[in-house]
Amino acid sequence: MSPKLRRLVRLLARLPGVGEKTAQRYVLWLLTSDEALSRELASELATLRDTMGPCSRCGNVAEIEGERSLCDVCADGKRDPKVLCVVARVHDLIAIERAGAMRGRYFVLGRLLSPLEGIGPEDLPLARLAERIREDSVTEVIVATPPSVDGEATALLLKRELGGLGAAVTRIASGVPHGGDLEFADPITMGRALAGRQRL
Amino acid sequence: MSPKLRRLVRLLARLPGVGEKTAQRYVLWLLTSDEALSRELASELATLRDTMGPCSRCGNVAEIEGERSLCDVCADGKRDPKVLCVVARVHDLIAIERAGAMRGRYFVLGRLLSPLEGIGPEDLPLARLAERIREDSVTEVIVATPPSVDGEATALLLKRELGGLGAAVTRIASGVPHGGDLEFADPITMGRALAGRQRL
Repeated sequence: MSPKLRRLVRLLARLPGVGEKTAQRYVLWLLTSDEALSRELASELATLRDTMGPCSRCGNVAEIEGERSLCDVCADGKRDPKVLCVVARVHDLIAIERAGAMRGRYFVLGRLLSPLEGIGPEDLPLARLAERIREDSVTEVIVATPPSVDGEATALLLKRELGGLGAAVTRIASGVPHGGDLEFADPITMGRALAGRQRL
Repeated sequence: MSPKLRRLVRLLARLPGVGEKTAQRYVLWLLTSDEALSRELASELATLRDTMGPCSRCGNVAEIEGERSLCDVCADGKRDPKVLCVVARVHDLIAIERAGAMRGRYFVLGRLLSPLEGIGPEDLPLARLAERIREDSVTEVIVATPPSVDGEATALLLKRELGGLGAAVTRIASGVPHGGDLEFADPITMGRALAGRQRL
């Protein structure tokens, strides 16, 4: 394989979940399919990081326009500014948006508490989050960090830090997923499903 | 999601095996990881189709140099020109090269006979293949088309068309794969493994 192709394979293999074999498959496809695909991809990628950046209010992906950049959600006047959903990553925000069940706005933490990785409370944008809650007179903070050890620790920290601001701090439910089989639920999930039971 | 990102997602989703969700994951990665990745990918892709094209002798991927372009295998003087391996696609050539078990050269057909898709013998580069066999005084043509219906039909066609040129026409073995469990082999594979048995 020529150095040019090796370079391209190495770059593509840095995408998440892409190994060398998959990257090679992509390169062969780019070489043998429609010639416009490579060129269009090249031109979109060349400007990607100049035109897109984090939303200056919530951290979601947004188009950069001058100094400030507002994402679609923050720019949407129909959203309730008093409901604020806190997520760890943009990926999570997109997953929630896909469900179409969120009528409020977001705040992207960017990371979770992680004693193992040496990430403490001082590494989270807690001051900015508190300011946002005051500014928008938020009445409910929905903590949508993942139901993992780090996600739960972060949720507890947020409850403690934000509890005195006058907004209710709630947590998304954790339990057996839709379509999931009780037989295959792990004990922790099953325990959460039981603990989180609600009256019918 | 902004139009810019939607365009990029749509382009990436044209890669083989990539759906919209995976493409979205790639875009988020490109947006949040090392900024150089997008730029380097862009510059490699921009020149890809100008610098790489099919080898003028075998159809493998090759760097374009002026009018003619020779791939690594055709340019390798240590390869035996009298052994010619016929494959359907460049992907297959690369898989065979990876095994390191081929000491000859290649000929990429580009497609297989496929009555269902209306691809007949006249759509295959049989004249070029015959010319190549004469030119290089090939003594063995190894037909390495896949062991599928179309692959077998193509192999039989090649046997008929090339049989009179003085070269032996052979076919790669088909059977239970290495590490495969006999219990899970399908009946056709098992039949082939038996039919292709060799004396120990």
